[in-house]
Amino acid sequence: MNGIAVRNIRRADAGAIGRLEQLGVATVHEAQGRTGLMQPYLRPVWRGARIAGSAITALIHPGDNWMIHVAVELLGPGDVLVVACSSENSDGAFGDLLATSLKARGAKGAVLDVGCRDAQELAAMQFPVWSRAISARGTVKASLGSVNLPVVCAGIRVAPGDVVVADDDGVVVVPRADAGKVAQAGAERESKEATNRAKLAAGALSLDLYDMRKALADKGLKYVDGPLD
Amino acid sequence: MNGIAVRNIRRADAGAIGRLEQLGVATVHEAQGRTGLMQPYLRPVWRGARIAGSAITALIHPGDNWMIHVAVELLGPGDVLVVACSSENSDGAFGDLLATSLKARGAKGAVLDVGCRDAQELAAMQFPVWSRAISARGTVKASLGSVNLPVVCAGIRVAPGDVVVADDDGVVVVPRADAGKVAQAGAERESKEATNRAKLAAGALSLDLYDMRKALADKGLKYVDGPLD
Amino acid sequence: MNGIAVRNIRRADAGAIGRLEQLGVATVHEAQGRTGLMQPYLRPVWRGARIAGSAITALIHPGDNWMIHVAVELLGPGDVLVVACSSENSDGAFGDLLATSLKARGAKGAVLDVGCRDAQELAAMQFPVWSRAISARGTVKASLGSVNLPVVCAGIRVAPGDVVVADDDGVVVVPRADAGKVAQAGAERESKEATNRAKLAAGALSLDLYDMRKALADKGLKYVDGPLD
Amino acid sequence: MNGIAVRNIRRADAGAIGRLEQLGVATVHEAQGRTGLMQPYLRPVWRGARIAGSAITALIHPGDNWMIHVAVELLGPGDVLVVACSSENSDGAFGDLLATSLKARGAKGAVLDVGCRDAQELAAMQFPVWSRAISARGTVKASLGSVNLPVVCAGIRVAPGDVVVADDDGVVVVPRADAGKVAQAGAERESKEATNRAKLAAGALSLDLYDMRKALADKGLKYVDGPLD
Amino acid sequence: MNGIAVRNIRRADAGAIGRLEQLGVATVHEAQGRTGLMQPYLRPVWRGARIAGSAITALIHPGDNWMIHVAVELLGPGDVLVVACSSENSDGAFGDLLATSLKARGAKGAVLDVGCRDAQELAAMQFPVWSRAISARGTVKASLGSVNLPVVCAGIRVAPGDVVVADDDGVVVVPRADAGKVAQAGAERESKEATNRAKLAAGALSLDLYDMRKALADKGLKYVDGPLD
Amino acid sequence: MNGIAVRNIRRADAGAIGRLEQLGVATVHEAQGRTGLMQPYLRPVWRGARIAGSAITALIHPGDNWMIHVAVELLGPGDVLVVACSSENSDGAFGDLLATSLKARGAKGAVLDVGCRDAQELAAMQFPVWSRAISARGTVKASLGSVNLPVVCAGIRVAPGDVVVADDDGVVVVPRADAGKVAQAGAERESKEATNRAKLAAGALSLDLYDMRKALADKGLKYVDGPLD
Repeated sequence: MNGIAVRNIRRADAGAIGRLEQLGVATVHEAQGRTGLMQPYLRPVWRGARIAGSAITALIHPGDNWMIHVAVELLGPGDVLVVACSSENSDGAFGDLLATSLKARGAKGAVLDVGCRDAQELAAMQFPVWSRAISARGTVKASLGSVNLPVVCAGIRVAPGDVVVADDDGVVVVPRADAGKVAQAGAERESKEATNRAKLAAGALSLDLYDMRKALADKGLKYVDGPLD
Repeated sequence: MNGIAVRNIRRADAGAIGRLEQLGVATVHEAQGRTGLMQPYLRPVWRGARIAGSAITALIHPGDNWMIHVAVELLGPGDVLVVACSSENSDGAFGDLLATSLKARGAKGAVLDVGCRDAQELAAMQFPVWSRAISARGTVKASLGSVNLPVVCAGIRVAPGDVVVADDDGVVVVPRADAGKVAQAGAERESKEATNRAKLAAGALSLDLYDMRKALADKGLKYVDGPLD
Repeated sequence: MNGIAVRNIRRADAGAIGRLEQLGVATVHEAQGRTGLMQPYLRPVWRGARIAGSAITALIHPGDNWMIHVAVELLGPGDVLVVACSSENSDGAFGDLLATSLKARGAKGAVLDVGCRDAQELAAMQFPVWSRAISARGTVKASLGSVNLPVVCAGIRVAPGDVVVADDDGVVVVPRADAGKVAQAGAERESKEATNRAKLAAGALSLDLYDMRKALADKGLKYVDGPLD
Repeated sequence: MNGIAVRNIRRADAGAIGRLEQLGVATVHEAQGRTGLMQPYLRPVWRGARIAGSAITALIHPGDNWMIHVAVELLGPGDVLVVACSSENSDGAFGDLLATSLKARGAKGAVLDVGCRDAQELAAMQFPVWSRAISARGTVKASLGSVNLPVVCAGIRVAPGDVVVADDDGVVVVPRADAGKVAQAGAERESKEATNRAKLAAGALSLDLYDMRKALADKGLKYVDGPLD
Repeated sequence: MNGIAVRNIRRADAGAIGRLEQLGVATVHEAQGRTGLMQPYLRPVWRGARIAGSAITALIHPGDNWMIHVAVELLGPGDVLVVACSSENSDGAFGDLLATSLKARGAKGAVLDVGCRDAQELAAMQFPVWSRAISARGTVKASLGSVNLPVVCAGIRVAPGDVVVADDDGVVVVPRADAGKVAQAGAERESKEATNRAKLAAGALSLDLYDMRKALADKGLKYVDGPLD
Repeated sequence: MNGIAVRNIRRADAGAIGRLEQLGVATVHEAQGRTGLMQPYLRPVWRGARIAGSAITALIHPGDNWMIHVAVELLGPGDVLVVACSSENSDGAFGDLLATSLKARGAKGAVLDVGCRDAQELAAMQFPVWSRAISARGTVKASLGSVNLPVVCAGIRVAPGDVVVADDDGVVVVPRADAGKVAQAGAERESKEATNRAKLAAGALSLDLYDMRKALADKGLKYVDGPLD
């Protein structure tokens, strides 16, 4: 619904958000049953960041970033700006001035289903942004969208206050109500993976570690000695 | 028109070119009324360069880089090679040998609406190239195109001697006759942005700085207190 | 053919593989008559590696990495895992646990016509991977494919034991039987290029070095003095 | 959430659905404030159909159509099957056998964010399908998804029982609760358009009909007499 | 340059335009030296039309079709509307109401580097449109572009009054000044092709007809008897 | 290997080819274990054809159709021309003159991993062509490729004499040696499908027909009564 900006939102528990940030995208995605991952065309503007925060959602229109300016006022410390667009667009709706504003308000980063500009400045500021394109093309301020209503961003529905986790593997969204539970499941997964990683590094095979040999044989896998040529 | 190479071209004022280089792509694009930006699929082969120079234009055909060799002779210090192709193609029409030649002649860089190869060597040489793909595929030398006739490269018309500005945000073209005027407008914009950046860093809101509140209300934006869930 | 895993394969001469690795993708591709280059959408997960090794091939299905686990056991020191998929898919079929296993077995790297995850961890491990996407999306283990049968990966047929060469320019495949011959041809090409690179750096023109002027004139190239505007 | 199939859903008023079908996609999309339109890569398998019905939603995984079989049992007369996929995939998850089943149960059509096969048979049956690709590639039955939980399909969230309207212009989704209101707004829009169409056909200009001249002048539009060349 | 609409343009000779229409896109493209062809993503909304006319050019912005309304007034009998966009966009900027207006003014068709809607109605009206997408998404009227200034549309520069030829093979642009010459060259080509077509239909080989055997042998083509397997 | 044309090839049994043609792409693809399907971007230039024939393979280079002319001479009645390209290219390498030649020689159709032109003429001739694009852009005759060596076309390896089956669902390749076996398996599948189609049309559910209920329950599928909203 265009023309609405919602001032206050509920956020997830800060401790859970912190734990999700440490886990990173791949682990969080697995921990919540392989859901919530945005499409992989969203890429970091610079590599190496890992963040988690509460979604402030904005819906904009192609070539028009007006509602991002509205969203800035409604962002607080620890938030992540999530920008959806009503149709596919790569214009640079976000650049170093908006990043300066977000940083001043304590935001953790931005996730844009449109383009981003000022790539060198954002890297220098170490302000993390994920976007579908890097494009210097500027945008107008002419059409109303919404702030803090649910949106679909890169294939995933995001409600305000959902937890957004992002790193070089992409962006995953955890519904606000599930943050604690997913953080817990992620920690368990991570601990199990650490054990397995050590075993694999020592030469163990995942075929044995995960007990796959029987299932493969049951499905009909045949080993042939070879070489065949 | 295929089969023509033009030996001498007019170039813009060197001072204006230098000022455009300092401004960078995003500012120059805004300063000339949001025109001239090549499509964002053109990406730097390595990140971190910022150049401006006079366009030497070449039109090639898919899988054939013959006219780039013709263009090299017609390039001089401060020039930027701009390569258009008669149809969509990602073959590696440009690599470290051509870059060596361009560097020897004082060229600032290359902008290719085709592929580029020798990515590691170009980064090591610090020779800046923007291309639509990185591909090792070599090209033949069989078909005539043109050098120093106007071309369309990544969606933008480029005439020989136009100023090409390129950085991590992409590539923008300033018509030769407009270089001084755009450099001036860009400097003014940059100075205004510096002031605004400081205010935003100190916590000012763009809603106030750019006086958007009344326009948003006039369009019908409604604030709702929330939370809605 | 689904459901077959071949245990032993023939490999190319280790010396030839080493020489191909030193030559890099662009030179090897030229040296074997511009064949064998995978499509340029395959990109390194991190920049700067250059490897060559013997292909261990796996065919998987979209969203399913089961056969990669089967392939791990059949990999040995110096091998490169090559993963093809029965339809276009970007899910993260390979991550840091599989990389840990491959590293433990002495593999040189992995080439995936699907997605890859754990990008930051792979860079930290310096384990080289080329993939069509970076995606955290996990995969199931439900469908049989094959290991060590010939596959088509990113447009190129790869038989087990073929030599895979990969760097920032992409991935090229040398049939096992041709490894020595291509390495020889590549060394000759490289030596000729070194000579030419020095001449070009000193200001020589490729038009003269490769004797193109007559051929251009014969084709009808006309030089016009200009400027035309 | 994987592993859930919901047996009963609420549907919109049949009269409203019928009126939305008559209006077609473009009018319905406008009538609900330009929201709800699926991305335009969804195309009809054959041209000329126009349908509206209640969404039965299925979430499947790439290369796996198992949950479509579960959905068939839960479909009734007047329903439209809506299939989302957990990652981008074009495999042919739906063909003439499933269409036969849907037709037998009285379904109006299917909207697939994956591929479709048996294109000639579907056209011969006149069973309407919209899909992202036509592909003969078959799918397995191995992984659980969901039926009749909300999904995101081609960029739009669809809840079971929402009204899906589809024709050659694409696919638009009307939330169940809004069906009557949108049908009403659409009817008004259509009537106004019919009047305008007649005036435009008689030579009236939209500049006058929609009173744009002053707004254009206020924005700064300048007419120049020309010709300029 | 935004904010300019040019009222009068020069057009090519009507006879030449008529002859270009009869020749069709493929022949015209060859006849002018394989230049002027728009990128092949532009497709007809319905198949079977073949038109030629004088370009009325409009530059619009993503999601905004205001300048098309300005262009309508400046179109006359025999003209073709050509719409470029400042960035990549598939929104439905043109539909049956605009088509009604264009038809009322005698326009031959429209070529849109954006989306088109009302596909069924346009086919029913037999009004020819080429576009990059079919999308019901509506557009705003908020930003000035230009009318009858040169634009780049789908990779080709179009000046007002240039001749646009379009059919199922795509869209080609003939500079106004070249219309007569290209029509003449096309007629000659067509007549030669008619002769060759008859010979080929009677079993002649293009290898002989175009005398390719010696050139192939000189290049090094070797015939091998086979079969090789 | 460039520069080779093989004169004679082995073909599959004509009866098997005829039976594969009747089965169509989807059934043949299933009958050979879901292998051999070309990527779905290959689309018919006109809808409604269904062919099968023996592959005559050509490898061409981007923008260059010379080897197609060589291939024409080596084609015979019942053959299908299969054209691969050394890099991604959409130029119109095939048009009505080549189609006239192929028709004169008794060829069944053409499958092109490049572009096709003269779409209206090909439809009028009812000569079936599958291609990755429709483009009027002409091609040169300058570089040698190969004829009747194995190629990779749209992701699938094709050897000369393999059986190519194509219809609106795409293109599938059956290795020559498997033609009889696959035709047999396809006939069995078709007969089983006919039975099932009748049952489904009468209201049977695939859940019962294919006995899926237990497997779904074992995997953990839960039915919930609903409605949930």
